[in-house]
Amino acid sequence: MGDKNITYKMSVRLFKEDKLFGPGIARLLTYVEEYKSLNQAAAHMNMAYSKAWKIIKEAEKQLGYELITRRIGGSGGGGAVLTDEGRSLLKRYEAFVREAQERVDEVFNKYFSS
Amino acid sequence: MGDKNITYKMSVRLFKEDKLFGPGIARLLTYVEEYKSLNQAAAHMNMAYSKAWKIIKEAEKQLGYELITRRIGGSGGGGAVLTDEGRSLLKRYEAFVREAQERVDEVFNKYFSS
Repeated sequence: MGDKNITYKMSVRLFKEDKLFGPGIARLLTYVEEYKSLNQAAAHMNMAYSKAWKIIKEAEKQLGYELITRRIGGSGGGGAVLTDEGRSLLKRYEAFVREAQERVDEVFNKYFSS
Repeated sequence: MGDKNITYKMSVRLFKEDKLFGPGIARLLTYVEEYKSLNQAAAHMNMAYSKAWKIIKEAEKQLGYELITRRIGGSGGGGAVLTDEGRSLLKRYEAFVREAQERVDEVFNKYFSS
């Protein structure tokens, strides 16, 4: 049976007691890395700064370590950068998602290739 | 680095132009199969009948075939059963999700085993 043109989307989220990491916070941290500012990262996602802050604080609470750290001073009047642990988690999440996607592509083609 | 006790959840959804199949409609169809009634299936999920109907109609529109068919009469005063195409799609989606999950488990353990 064909089911032509069917595609799929996969999402993976990390949990401890609650959800702690998924595509949203991954994008947010990627933009923090790029802009060196949580404020600008949130703005780039059309997200309120207070919401971005809350997302990161809740993830940090469950993880037991900080994901970002304030950078005092500098030409932009301060900002934020990823901690080593935050960068490591982001990289592992991205690698996990990328490799998971490759594997699931194979399975999808087995059941839904037209 | 440990990140002990982290687990993950994965979701996969099928698309054509729009989303057409995911965990929600899969559960709904599973209950239709069990109860032979869309009304009872929706009730079992605490979902309004009108919403269940809309979900199925929109999926059918994108797929170009029917997922369920009314069963006239019978002791329950009629009801609904899956069409052969609906049963096939449900089975393939379930097999896809199950096998995808197994593969992603391996990838997860590679990046996040404690």
